[in-house]
Amino acid sequence: MTNDIALNLHEKWNGKLETTSKCTVKSREDLALAYTPGVAEPCKVIAQDQEAAYKYTIKSNTVAVVSDGSAVLGLGNIGPYAAMPVMEGKSVLFKEFGNVNAFPICLNTQDTEEIIKTVINIAPAFGGINLEDISAPRCFEIEERLKQALDIPVFHDDQHGTAIVVLAGIINSLKVVNKTKEDCNVVVNGAGSAGIAITKLLLNYGFKNIIMCDKVGILSQNTPNLNWMQQDMMKVTNLSNKTGLLKDALAGADIFIGVSAPNIVTSEMVASMNKDAILFAMANPVPEIMPDVAKAAGARVVGTGRSDFPNQVNNVVAFPGIFKGALEGRAKQITEEMKLAAALAIAGLIPDDQVSDVNILPEPFDPRVSQVVSDAVKAHIK
Amino acid sequence: MTNDIALNLHEKWNGKLETTSKCTVKSREDLALAYTPGVAEPCKVIAQDQEAAYKYTIKSNTVAVVSDGSAVLGLGNIGPYAAMPVMEGKSVLFKEFGNVNAFPICLNTQDTEEIIKTVINIAPAFGGINLEDISAPRCFEIEERLKQALDIPVFHDDQHGTAIVVLAGIINSLKVVNKTKEDCNVVVNGAGSAGIAITKLLLNYGFKNIIMCDKVGILSQNTPNLNWMQQDMMKVTNLSNKTGLLKDALAGADIFIGVSAPNIVTSEMVASMNKDAILFAMANPVPEIMPDVAKAAGARVVGTGRSDFPNQVNNVVAFPGIFKGALEGRAKQITEEMKLAAALAIAGLIPDDQVSDVNILPEPFDPRVSQVVSDAVKAHIK
Repeated sequence: MTNDIALNLHEKWNGKLETTSKCTVKSREDLALAYTPGVAEPCKVIAQDQEAAYKYTIKSNTVAVVSDGSAVLGLGNIGPYAAMPVMEGKSVLFKEFGNVNAFPICLNTQDTEEIIKTVINIAPAFGGINLEDISAPRCFEIEERLKQALDIPVFHDDQHGTAIVVLAGIINSLKVVNKTKEDCNVVVNGAGSAGIAITKLLLNYGFKNIIMCDKVGILSQNTPNLNWMQQDMMKVTNLSNKTGLLKDALAGADIFIGVSAPNIVTSEMVASMNKDAILFAMANPVPEIMPDVAKAAGARVVGTGRSDFPNQVNNVVAFPGIFKGALEGRAKQITEEMKLAAALAIAGLIPDDQVSDVNILPEPFDPRVSQVVSDAVKAHIK
Repeated sequence: MTNDIALNLHEKWNGKLETTSKCTVKSREDLALAYTPGVAEPCKVIAQDQEAAYKYTIKSNTVAVVSDGSAVLGLGNIGPYAAMPVMEGKSVLFKEFGNVNAFPICLNTQDTEEIIKTVINIAPAFGGINLEDISAPRCFEIEERLKQALDIPVFHDDQHGTAIVVLAGIINSLKVVNKTKEDCNVVVNGAGSAGIAITKLLLNYGFKNIIMCDKVGILSQNTPNLNWMQQDMMKVTNLSNKTGLLKDALAGADIFIGVSAPNIVTSEMVASMNKDAILFAMANPVPEIMPDVAKAAGARVVGTGRSDFPNQVNNVVAFPGIFKGALEGRAKQITEEMKLAAALAIAGLIPDDQVSDVNILPEPFDPRVSQVVSDAVKAHIK
């Protein structure tokens, strides 16, 4: 039903985004000011000082939403044309939630080198690059290389946006269960872009014991066919080099974070976790375990990606404010400090006395969100 | 004065363009329709049938305004950052005059191969490519190669937009002076992208005798250092292989078309032309000869690029309607037939009994213009 409505609406919209003019061109005088000959003046100033582009052009407040369509939502490698509705939607969210202009750049190539070159080539018009739905492990190299090559923020939202919101939710969940990060055993299921970024940010925040799992079970130094990034992760996770299946990892765990597949966590697995377990079951649209099932099995806090349950883990509370702050403060990169500060700011929107097992994250439509995230980011620009 | 105002306005605007949403996202339900999970539906349909991108995404009505900043206005090679105010302005004009969305793509490279590859790579989001302010002769190869590689219209406005409007003005000028195209001697001064495209379109329309000039004077088969495109043009222009300076070309000419430099045409040169001479002196902001000077020397019709004289030759009467028609009719290319039809449509907006030496082209703000141009283009889609 929703699907039919969505399809019909997309046809009616015929593109969810449009470009509009901030200046009027209704007279010859208007034209002379916004176009020739007047436009030559800002051109000349920028030709002398490239930084002036931030003063006179959309670069100051515009993000490219870049995808090659290789890992779109739960749909997989559907290519750049089919990725367009998502990238337009993302662009809409940037504007509506963060007042940041955004434009979809859907790439007709999935070659790492070509993607990097193309993004570098189109960067002048943009103040930031939001990478989206690019498959792992290519996404890690693409992001890292672009960060080195460009002097504007580059941010892979599937990684870092997700990680920031998960951390925010975990920070408040710990208050509910009265546990400390240092003492929690964490299981992250799904070792793609999101799972790896979540793990890194949790480690940076101060978690000590994290085990990553994937379809094959627990990832350890003995697991064959790990990609280079997963191999890197084995230096900082699963330090006791445990082996086994997901159920073995969950026995005695305090926190489960799933960015994986529907219905793969059972009641028995939840029951085997430590008391007051926290589960973020974010497979979409069907989570790793349904919240009521998890709760019945003993879980204390359950988050999902869905809006029809409490504790929705939704990137939209992060990325618009992240870029808003980075652009306003003219950050050259989105640093680890900014990500941690953003997570704390999101978590902090819920006063401690209102934090509960069904209230760990602000609503996506909470009008305060993008501003506090933006402020947190700006406070950490060096 | 205008310059100061323009600079201040550009600072106030801080970018003349913005991206705005066509859908509201004020509730969870809105979000579920415009973004996940609803957005997956159009994605799936497009993954099955790429053409559906025209039904569900901005591709149907969005143009990339692509420049490498190598030949911007009269400013020269000022690079992609300094080109931004022009490309934003152009994007604004696309929307305001043709109701076509447009977004500036300013390229951090001036390498022909890289430009071609980059534009191909970003093409999926766009329904058309408007090349702008790319220096000759690279612009010819870039346009040609992109036309071959892409199934969306590619149009270098400096060439073809200019040529269309010039031809429209010439068509009406001939009515004023009661001469026929076959019998006119034409001099085109300036052998860059605009001069060459004008010459080609005039030849396609039916002019027989055209001489191209450049800084060195008359271009002939003997002229050294012609680029490959200029050499090509020597096969179809200056068929008597005349040599000499601009003044030698103008003696006995009926039409002068300047896309060159200020004040290079003298009263004496105009006086040496045939009776009822037509001059389009389009160097900007200072024309090759001022209209009053040309008229005093015997010219009958004078056009310039300026809005403060009669007969402004302004691309804005062409490119918005060209792309509007091409996009609405889903043209795969902008053909010669479409360009000729567009020129005739523009000229036809002035009824024969109202054509005069000060009324050869419609006003840029004539609300009929983009529609008649669009209709003319659509009528020639095969």
